[in-house]
Formats: sequence, C-alpha cells, structure tokens
Amino acid sequence: MIFRIEPARVEDCGVLLTLIRGLAEYERLLHQVVASEERLRAELFGTRPVIEAVIGWEDGHAVGFALFFHNFSTFLARRGLYLEDLFVVPQARGRGYGKALIVHLARLAVERGCGRFEWAVLDWNQPAIDFYQSLGAQLLPDWRVCRLTGDALERLSDLRAA
Amino acid sequence: MIFRIEPARVEDCGVLLTLIRGLAEYERLLHQVVASEERLRAELFGTRPVIEAVIGWEDGHAVGFALFFHNFSTFLARRGLYLEDLFVVPQARGRGYGKALIVHLARLAVERGCGRFEWAVLDWNQPAIDFYQSLGAQLLPDWRVCRLTGDALERLSDLRAA
Repeated sequence: MIFRIEPARVEDCGVLLTLIRGLAEYERLLHQVVASEERLRAELFGTRPVIEAVIGWEDGHAVGFALFFHNFSTFLARRGLYLEDLFVVPQARGRGYGKALIVHLARLAVERGCGRFEWAVLDWNQPAIDFYQSLGAQLLPDWRVCRLTGDALERLSDLRAA
Repeated sequence: MIFRIEPARVEDCGVLLTLIRGLAEYERLLHQVVASEERLRAELFGTRPVIEAVIGWEDGHAVGFALFFHNFSTFLARRGLYLEDLFVVPQARGRGYGKALIVHLARLAVERGCGRFEWAVLDWNQPAIDFYQSLGAQLLPDWRVCRLTGDALERLSDLRAA
C-alpha cells in the first residue's frame, strides 16, 4: 500500500470535514461538531489563514489528517508548531500512519525554524503519553489551560476596565 | 493618569523587548531570554506574521504588554484567541492595567468572531487562578502540554516513518 502525506487543498475541505466528523465520532463528541466545509474553507484558505492541514492518503483514500498552526515562545521570540488534532481512521490503524504524520510535522517544524513542536494530551491517556514520550516529548506537568467562551467571554468583553 | 492600549508598531519592538526582559526578570528567567529586537520585528511584522502584541501606555510610558496569536478549535472550525504573555511592570501594578489588557483582548476576540479566548496558568498559582475564575474563565483540569524541542525534535524530524 502506498501512503502519502499532502497539504490539504481547497478542494479537500469536504474530505477533511468527513475525517473531522470521524474523529468526533471516535471521541463520542459528534454532537459538539459545528464545523462545516464552508467554515473550514474560510479558516484554511481565507484571508490571513491561521491554520494548516495535511491529509494522509492510502492508495488514494483519505485515511488521516493533522491540523496545526503556529504558536509562539516570547522568550525565544520564535514561532513554534502546535498540533491541534491528529486522526487516523480506525480501519487504517496499526500501519504507522499516526507516527508518520507526527514525523512529517516535526520535519516541517525544523524546516521552518520553529523552536518547539507542541500538542496537548489528556492526563489520563497513559498509552498516548507513553507513545509521545517514546518520541522524545516531555510532558509539562504544571500548566493548565484557562478558557473563556460563550456568555462569559461576551460579558468580559463588555466590561469597562481600568 | 492616562492609560491607553495600542497595537505594537514596528518602531515599538525595542520597548517590547525591554518589557519582555522585565517579565523574565520578574520570573527569574532572564537567562532564558534569547529574544532580540530583530527577531521580534521578524515575527510581528515579517511575511505572514503569526503573533500580535499590544502595549499599555501610562502617560506616554510603556508599562505593560500582551502578546497573542490565533489558535483553533477543530470541532467549531473557528479560530480562537490565545494569550501567550501578559505583563505589567511592578511600579504600575494595582491600577487595573492587567485586567484592562485582558478585557481589551476579550473584546478583540469577540470582534473577530473567535469562539474562545484561552491562556495557560501554573497550577500552583492560586491567586492567578482565582482572578481568572472571577473573570468567568474555566480551568481545563485534564489537558497537559507535550513539548518536543532541541535535539529530540531534530531526531524525530530525521526519522523515516511508515
């Protein structure tokens, strides 16, 4: 079987949406998906896009994807590469495609002069943590994400401060 | 005293570097700073910049900054706003400037149609956590950051996968 990784093209947004829905279904979070082909097109190929995606093709069939963007280290004053999502469809697992996608992005990070390659993992997902550590990744134990969304974000944005 | 928040301009990179060094000094991490005016200029004002910065001015003196970029929610297929660093110089604390910077970014997030406004906090920094929660932020308890950097990143990028 031939496996290739290619940057997503504008005509791949439908395929990408199917893969995203596959990921959500796998995580039993399909109800949370409001992504549409149109929104993906806008975010990936609109004015000043912030994200990029690659698709993994096995014999011409899309079997996986990775979605990433650049983050930043202030002290280094240098961009990093942040992997937001990676997925391989269940029927194509066990062939090293997930690792191939990660290696592909590591290479991209080095080519672009990024100081870091980062992603998030759930702290109870020990198999994933073990896998990532086997690739040389460190786990940052004491950082937590703060999130403002929905009404709370609206309320704060309406505040008169200082 | 008059306090204004303005987008950083290319001629503010020197001021911004001084503020970044101030932040690093405050965190006793000055030895980690390899940022330079030139690198900041490249990342903020070069081709396809990924980051943005705002500077807080008190009576014409730069007393704080926030550095941010766009991240992304795959399920929403919508960009978010990610606050990488925020700092107010010690001599200008207690006047609400930190909160003013956060509100400014919350407003920017809403104006740009971002689904989320996020940042990271150290899990032992309870005063910061309390403050952020008072603004309406939730703490995501179970996500951890994985980081590949330096030799480990180089090694992985050299790997032949799949």
